[in-house]
Amino acid sequence: MIQQIDHIGIAVKSLEEGVSYYEKTLGLKCESIEEVASQKVKTAFFHVGEVHIELLEATDPESPIAKFLEKNGEGVHHIAFRTDNITEQLGSAAAAGARLIHEVPFEGAANKLVAFLHPKSTHGVLTEFCANKE
Amino acid sequence: MIQQIDHIGIAVKSLEEGVSYYEKTLGLKCESIEEVASQKVKTAFFHVGEVHIELLEATDPESPIAKFLEKNGEGVHHIAFRTDNITEQLGSAAAAGARLIHEVPFEGAANKLVAFLHPKSTHGVLTEFCANKE
Repeated sequence: MIQQIDHIGIAVKSLEEGVSYYEKTLGLKCESIEEVASQKVKTAFFHVGEVHIELLEATDPESPIAKFLEKNGEGVHHIAFRTDNITEQLGSAAAAGARLIHEVPFEGAANKLVAFLHPKSTHGVLTEFCANKE
Repeated sequence: MIQQIDHIGIAVKSLEEGVSYYEKTLGLKCESIEEVASQKVKTAFFHVGEVHIELLEATDPESPIAKFLEKNGEGVHHIAFRTDNITEQLGSAAAAGARLIHEVPFEGAANKLVAFLHPKSTHGVLTEFCANKE
């Protein structure tokens, strides 16, 4: 079952400029900056109530974020829903007709299991499920 | 000060199909459907933890949502941040360089005051501030 929105991923050209905008213009505080080599991105996290905003900068032209920016420009890249059972959540989404990018969850940042649904089957929103590892 | 994400607005071609997707594929429950004649949209709301998802369907070809769909297709349209003082929030955003779509907040749905920042000045995210009326 989906419990809450875990985070909103936002693609930016420059993490430095993105962090500066969220800090100065919105008054939020950056908690952490982390490079995720496997995804070829550098990320910055902000707390907003129970949700995080995750800014994403590409560290390589082959990064999915570089391709997203080329096609769409800066903006919301994905929404991540936290679930208490990611395997069940993926199963019921697939049964209802969603196209899974990952049939089996894999280990993401912060010791979480994650998997994505394809935006062509989710009314245009790249959708992530995430769950704490047992 | 920003307190939390109030809602995420998502543009869909058909509210009926959008609601069906969020109910059947994600297992969320639609709380309310409302037509907002002034904005030429029909909306559906879902609770997800402390955040709402607001699906938006255009009811007129001149609706901002119709124009968004034409340009971008379905997907995230805006993010709304709840603030305890919308006038102060707008003032400090403007002082930091944000371009205000509304200099003065106006009355939105659910007895709230709302105002938007232009996505050209917010790294691609159409950004809403909202606050409860005094």
